[in-house]
Amino acid sequence: MKPFMDRDFLLSTETAKHLYHAYAEDMPIIDYHCHLSPAEIYEDRQFENIAQVWLGGDHYKWRIMRAHGVEEKYITGDASDREKFQKWAETLSMAIGNPLYHWTHLELRMFFDYQGVLNEDTAEEVWNLCNAKLKTMTARKMIEMAKVTHLCTTDDPADDLHWHRLIKADESFKVQVMPAWRPDQAMSIGKEGYPAYIAKLSKAADMEIRSFRDLMTVLHNRLDFFEDNGCKVSDHGMDMVMYEPASEEEVEEIFAKRMHGERITQLQERKFRTAFLLRMGMEYAHRNWVMQLHYGVIRDNNKKLFGKLGADAGIDSIGNSAPVSELASFLNALAETDELPKTIIYSLNPIDNTAIETVMACFQEGPFISKLQHGSAWWFNDHKKGMIDQMTSLANEGMLCDFVGMLTDSRSFLSYARHDYFRRILCDLIGGWVENGEYPDDQKALEKIIKGISYNNAKQYFEFWG
Amino acid sequence: MKPFMDRDFLLSTETAKHLYHAYAEDMPIIDYHCHLSPAEIYEDRQFENIAQVWLGGDHYKWRIMRAHGVEEKYITGDASDREKFQKWAETLSMAIGNPLYHWTHLELRMFFDYQGVLNEDTAEEVWNLCNAKLKTMTARKMIEMAKVTHLCTTDDPADDLHWHRLIKADESFKVQVMPAWRPDQAMSIGKEGYPAYIAKLSKAADMEIRSFRDLMTVLHNRLDFFEDNGCKVSDHGMDMVMYEPASEEEVEEIFAKRMHGERITQLQERKFRTAFLLRMGMEYAHRNWVMQLHYGVIRDNNKKLFGKLGADAGIDSIGNSAPVSELASFLNALAETDELPKTIIYSLNPIDNTAIETVMACFQEGPFISKLQHGSAWWFNDHKKGMIDQMTSLANEGMLCDFVGMLTDSRSFLSYARHDYFRRILCDLIGGWVENGEYPDDQKALEKIIKGISYNNAKQYFEFWG
Amino acid sequence: MKPFMDRDFLLSTETAKHLYHAYAEDMPIIDYHCHLSPAEIYEDRQFENIAQVWLGGDHYKWRIMRAHGVEEKYITGDASDREKFQKWAETLSMAIGNPLYHWTHLELRMFFDYQGVLNEDTAEEVWNLCNAKLKTMTARKMIEMAKVTHLCTTDDPADDLHWHRLIKADESFKVQVMPAWRPDQAMSIGKEGYPAYIAKLSKAADMEIRSFRDLMTVLHNRLDFFEDNGCKVSDHGMDMVMYEPASEEEVEEIFAKRMHGERITQLQERKFRTAFLLRMGMEYAHRNWVMQLHYGVIRDNNKKLFGKLGADAGIDSIGNSAPVSELASFLNALAETDELPKTIIYSLNPIDNTAIETVMACFQEGPFISKLQHGSAWWFNDHKKGMIDQMTSLANEGMLCDFVGMLTDSRSFLSYARHDYFRRILCDLIGGWVENGEYPDDQKALEKIIKGISYNNAKQYFEFWG
Repeated sequence: MKPFMDRDFLLSTETAKHLYHAYAEDMPIIDYHCHLSPAEIYEDRQFENIAQVWLGGDHYKWRIMRAHGVEEKYITGDASDREKFQKWAETLSMAIGNPLYHWTHLELRMFFDYQGVLNEDTAEEVWNLCNAKLKTMTARKMIEMAKVTHLCTTDDPADDLHWHRLIKADESFKVQVMPAWRPDQAMSIGKEGYPAYIAKLSKAADMEIRSFRDLMTVLHNRLDFFEDNGCKVSDHGMDMVMYEPASEEEVEEIFAKRMHGERITQLQERKFRTAFLLRMGMEYAHRNWVMQLHYGVIRDNNKKLFGKLGADAGIDSIGNSAPVSELASFLNALAETDELPKTIIYSLNPIDNTAIETVMACFQEGPFISKLQHGSAWWFNDHKKGMIDQMTSLANEGMLCDFVGMLTDSRSFLSYARHDYFRRILCDLIGGWVENGEYPDDQKALEKIIKGISYNNAKQYFEFWG
Repeated sequence: MKPFMDRDFLLSTETAKHLYHAYAEDMPIIDYHCHLSPAEIYEDRQFENIAQVWLGGDHYKWRIMRAHGVEEKYITGDASDREKFQKWAETLSMAIGNPLYHWTHLELRMFFDYQGVLNEDTAEEVWNLCNAKLKTMTARKMIEMAKVTHLCTTDDPADDLHWHRLIKADESFKVQVMPAWRPDQAMSIGKEGYPAYIAKLSKAADMEIRSFRDLMTVLHNRLDFFEDNGCKVSDHGMDMVMYEPASEEEVEEIFAKRMHGERITQLQERKFRTAFLLRMGMEYAHRNWVMQLHYGVIRDNNKKLFGKLGADAGIDSIGNSAPVSELASFLNALAETDELPKTIIYSLNPIDNTAIETVMACFQEGPFISKLQHGSAWWFNDHKKGMIDQMTSLANEGMLCDFVGMLTDSRSFLSYARHDYFRRILCDLIGGWVENGEYPDDQKALEKIIKGISYNNAKQYFEFWG
Repeated sequence: MKPFMDRDFLLSTETAKHLYHAYAEDMPIIDYHCHLSPAEIYEDRQFENIAQVWLGGDHYKWRIMRAHGVEEKYITGDASDREKFQKWAETLSMAIGNPLYHWTHLELRMFFDYQGVLNEDTAEEVWNLCNAKLKTMTARKMIEMAKVTHLCTTDDPADDLHWHRLIKADESFKVQVMPAWRPDQAMSIGKEGYPAYIAKLSKAADMEIRSFRDLMTVLHNRLDFFEDNGCKVSDHGMDMVMYEPASEEEVEEIFAKRMHGERITQLQERKFRTAFLLRMGMEYAHRNWVMQLHYGVIRDNNKKLFGKLGADAGIDSIGNSAPVSELASFLNALAETDELPKTIIYSLNPIDNTAIETVMACFQEGPFISKLQHGSAWWFNDHKKGMIDQMTSLANEGMLCDFVGMLTDSRSFLSYARHDYFRRILCDLIGGWVENGEYPDDQKALEKIIKGISYNNAKQYFEFWG
């Protein structure tokens, strides 16, 4: 029996251990997609206790607490932090097979040097230990402990990037913190608050928006502004990547209709969203940015809980209604005019893996190295099986060696432990192939592959400097 | 090489063996979903020979016999039982990798103490051995040999529960046999015989049904009647869980139209079915019953064979047209008014596993322990891979430790061997994690988890007494 | 650590090694589905160099070269063969986990007796070695080296089978080379060149085609002609197997409309395609041919590259919009009149595996041995995981022992190495079950199963002689 989560955790062969300890373990981190708060980074937030760090906004944890019968009072309600932590410890101790079990213990080992097991009996000890350490551990300290070199937050086009500019001006913090462009609200013409959002965007850009053409002009200006502030990455969250082409006139009519408060049809919404995303894609291509397309999500399923807690309450799910033919048509529309940017595609539904790989492969072109990337196993899939499936599928259909690797997609400063989790799984997968005679024991090639997927590929792909 | 199907069958690590033999092996069984005949239980049916038990109604076996080229005469036709058994032995001996290979040998070991291999050469020996034992083995004996404590059959709302009442009155049989409420016919407004069924239901309830409102009143009365006879569980079999809301008026119109012999549209059928299932769900919530939703099935694909043999002839298949967004909307509609009952969701299509987990998690709420359950790998999926996939997926997205575990869904009194199969796979999965350092070797926690999933969780979830 | 790709490659247990070396390794090959050129076989084509063999038309290789950043010049462009080969060697050496890595090295071992590793450093050595051997290795020689006994090419109904007749007349070549009937063009009423194709077909059959009835008469004649030339197998490539029934009149109208240059609707196209495929299916049943249905493909996604390179340029992908209910209805329509031929079903999307198995099982009937077959893991799925998934799924739902096994679906004379790859994976899978006590160590049964799936089943199923 292997010891519980020791230094060789998840590394089941000698080659796997070697690959991890020799090549992966000490590599720094590029976190090209997260939801950390730039304000908290600039102000170097300190946390009062471990419950605040772990349970404050982590809906992954909320979900399994609810599933285990914990009442909402102890999750998002008015129970004390110590009480919430106790419920968390009790839940976690029974969460066999869940990635949170591993992430939590990796975080305890990496950030708090705790080698034990968290459960209801050790909860008090862990609470005291972590809280003592948190007195000297700030947001920036955690980022530095994780050896992060580059970090992209998620920002709306209307954002003034105030905190980003302050961080950039602060020479004491060496990590490159960049905004990422996420225009979901500007694209969501079907949502209730759309005209209000457009007004907000208009104000941020100091230009009236009376047409789709105006909207594009404003976004163009905001893209310039984001670019001036170091942005090189966009992100789109969608139920599906659709393709419903329409004339410019038609799109203008749809926009005008919606801005006048009229209802638009589902077909019109599809047309607008297609036109919007095509125009964004072209802009990214012109600027050599990376386009991230996240899809396969159904948001806010539980309306009652949404009414109480709002978005990001642990009430989103996977969707299964995204025809891959539309994704292919969308990519083709950009490729036909040589305006397909570097693109990373993620579906939340793991059954889309192989189909996505095969669509991507149709649009690869040198001299870009894997211009299209299949994004890392994400959200509900960033567990051992999910990661193995995504990487096996990528290896089967394309060039795994060129993969840009793990993202955190997280709100927590401790979640960098997931990169370690990912790297262990990567090394175990590749180590297993070598041990099984499926790839030569060629250390030069293996070092390049492991270091590439852990860090170097992302740096080259996003063209990050430093 | 491990010996063929010995006491450590499917247990590949020392921890797995320990978990199984120490905690799982001797636990009793709750069979909360089966298709056994209450008449046969009451009358304590005796079988003339093993072909009758095994081949009489088991369409799983029929399917692989057909696939292996056996002619229908030897499957459902007029060949002798001995001839049919010979064809079965020949087919089985070549059914490498099929779960029937394992189930059959587990049944031979558990019920007939036969440790050998069934094939065309041993068929005669097995035939004689089993038939000799069957002289003293009745329906009740088999149930008791399997240590079943609770058992739910499948019953139509129009059923008079005659046999259930007789079983209940018979103090010599200690197993709790309960009805389960399955109103598929009352919901199937699109089916040919619908008005005739409504007439039958009307008669059973001794009340005329002239409207949807009447239908609901009658079903309310029948629910009371079932409840009085110990029922706590419902079951719905569907192609998909749909959500197409409609006003009460509209539903009344659709019902009236259909009862007058007019055709209704697919959209109208969707509306009726949605309304029906919502009303049932509310009733279950008020009564604290469990709602079982089985979907992803296409029934009676082969019309020629259906014409000869009727339903349950081995001619059903998996469907792949069930948008999970409608499942989410359906659950939400019940949750919004706090009328979502305890619910178990099963899709016959294994590709739905992860999506189902993530939808369920949106509606979990304490103090219920895993109020929503992902049902056990079912029908075409109750093999090693199917069970591992379902449990891994549940572990990744929720709390595996709270899983209510295996059901048989079977027509055969010998099929309890499948619970043993399930427990071995469970112990091997969890044992593997412990051996690999992914969960601590904490025997207290492991005992709770294994005994819970084997038996205790179901007892608590369904609130069965005794 | 196992040595890299030695004689026990992919065989991880002693039983697996025994099964492979004793039963599988030396079996001949039936290649019932490939895209080899009968002209090249008749003329016994010789290749100038290994780049010509490997890179001339193999879009599998093109795709990973593009993904690795190789420019089109070195893939399909005007770079020299030696330069292309260098780029290929560089790409391949980093293609960890990709089946091409294994296929390429198996081909080097099987055909060129090269036991080393191909990479940028050894490229020159391999280039020289292969080119020297290619001086004495012709198309026929390669087919014979692979021990192929039967081989079906892919042929349009309008084809005159000139080369096939020449091959048949040439007694010096013992391999049975047969045409396979692929009427995709005749079925593709929605395609631009449809009337032109019908004219071509008309000319080939020397009969005017003025109606759907005429079309069927012509195809009937061509089927006779193909049958006279040894054909026993058909093949259909589709996005999905659809079922949209229509009256003969309606189909005639659709055909007439299209032939008059008018546009037809999607629904009309569905009706025509359904009618066409039903009629073909009946013909195959009457002739006892095998019907192959390949679906789940989206072709020519990248229009820019399609414009330059045409079809088969590595720009096809998996589709995910094929409702299995229509497949079931289509099969049922043929089965109802006892006109369902022996049928092999392949979906390019691996998520369809289990659903396909369960549909097939509804239509199996003796005395045919697995009349319906789930086709081998195909195109994007003929890697280790894809093959294991398909075979496990087949074993779980049907009779793996009756599987007709591997096809190459290839344009390359070296690709027979994939049969060896398949057999190793088969033996490892079954060997693992035996070692794990899941099937008895019954050498008689195992020999029958392994030899069956490797060769004998296909010979019996297609009723090939010799």
